[in-house]
Amino acid sequence: MDEPVLLTGAAGRVGTAIREGIGEQYDFRLLDREPPADSVDHPLFIGDITDRETLEEAMEGAEVVVHLAGDPRTDAPWESVLRNNIDGTQTIFEVAVEVGVEKVIFASSNHAVGHYETDREPDLYQAEDEFQIDGSELPRPSNLYGVSKATGEILGRYYHDEYGLSVLNVRIGNLTKEHPPRNYERGQAMWLSHRDCAHLFDRAIQAEYDFEIVYGISDNDRKFYSIDRARDVLDYEPRDNSGEYTLAGDPKGGGEL
Amino acid sequence: MDEPVLLTGAAGRVGTAIREGIGEQYDFRLLDREPPADSVDHPLFIGDITDRETLEEAMEGAEVVVHLAGDPRTDAPWESVLRNNIDGTQTIFEVAVEVGVEKVIFASSNHAVGHYETDREPDLYQAEDEFQIDGSELPRPSNLYGVSKATGEILGRYYHDEYGLSVLNVRIGNLTKEHPPRNYERGQAMWLSHRDCAHLFDRAIQAEYDFEIVYGISDNDRKFYSIDRARDVLDYEPRDNSGEYTLAGDPKGGGEL
Repeated sequence: MDEPVLLTGAAGRVGTAIREGIGEQYDFRLLDREPPADSVDHPLFIGDITDRETLEEAMEGAEVVVHLAGDPRTDAPWESVLRNNIDGTQTIFEVAVEVGVEKVIFASSNHAVGHYETDREPDLYQAEDEFQIDGSELPRPSNLYGVSKATGEILGRYYHDEYGLSVLNVRIGNLTKEHPPRNYERGQAMWLSHRDCAHLFDRAIQAEYDFEIVYGISDNDRKFYSIDRARDVLDYEPRDNSGEYTLAGDPKGGGEL
Repeated sequence: MDEPVLLTGAAGRVGTAIREGIGEQYDFRLLDREPPADSVDHPLFIGDITDRETLEEAMEGAEVVVHLAGDPRTDAPWESVLRNNIDGTQTIFEVAVEVGVEKVIFASSNHAVGHYETDREPDLYQAEDEFQIDGSELPRPSNLYGVSKATGEILGRYYHDEYGLSVLNVRIGNLTKEHPPRNYERGQAMWLSHRDCAHLFDRAIQAEYDFEIVYGISDNDRKFYSIDRARDVLDYEPRDNSGEYTLAGDPKGGGEL
């Protein structure tokens, strides 16, 4: 792809995984409130996503927007997610339509559906438990942050139906850079490795689709999110599985994670 | 029921249908920005639903909140629905939990799912067309007002899952006081008569449920919204059907609507 790809929230954890993994493959533009801590060799836009002028400048001529910006705290207060995650995402879609962006990839979250775990844990996190949700289910947010992510998905649905934008929502699991979370079965169930994350967003930028909701996790034995839709629509081929890791090498000794 | 029932947006069209139909059956309290045009014999609270103090005063001691307030314009600008419909509804739920309200009935809208009609009309509006949606489908809003209503439903899901509030979402169709809409098949398909509206909210106040999404329409021949869930959960028994009306009596003469 020759056209620019805008990464909002480029300095954050997901943005960093994308830049480290596929930074050289695309003509990325980076937008964030503060510059990333690491060095970057892409054009940098500093500003807030609720500021329309900043967005117009950053999106002009871009073909794809990967929208990661927002308050990432699962305990963020309502006022913050209302402004940064809900109002900010609406501004992204408005400007995307205005300047002719073709595709928006939205970083949604497992917290949009966190209350499906109510009454089911801890069986849900075991490899032998067969319950899975696949993205066709109604949202059940676990916090107001999750409400804001579910709302972002609905905004995407509207801007797809009304204006023909291609929209992909990735409900991101538990992203860590190296080892999967230890002593945290839920985190192992929804682990997303750095390289699977970069690969998933690579496929999201390349693939063709109308409106989709997929889960962004590695191929974990413990998973209760289906990755079938990501495989089918995006040709996502994860290489990692939290079930293949042990505590060997850890100062506390070997054994299961 | 002896405990008070708060009606927000009590001066509006749905609030008026409820007050006229079942006003004497409940100890209603009315909240709106302006007093209703007709006379009222219930306690009246004047204020904005984003004002927490007004809500605390109006909800104190209430068992049920019927939340109708918000910007009702289908072409309302984002800034207005963000504030009045999304932020306002979040404040309703916050205060409901704080003061111990047991049940919130939320006036959602057909516009939360309006884009299911894309590519299907006008067949969809014919009595012989069998396509129906039933409330289990993902939202597909037809405008930003519809986005705000779908978000209100998700807020309800969160406050139910997290705090145990009983929450009913009524996706209201096309409410008219007497005759169904003329020369408007879509409006006839989703017509809600005044008396069916009052009966539906009567059942909503009385029935027991956890979290539900139902369609609020009469038993119209042309309907493409299922009313099965409203029948099953609420014992809703509509008496009207737009298909039983003709133009007879109309100055323009008889014939089909």
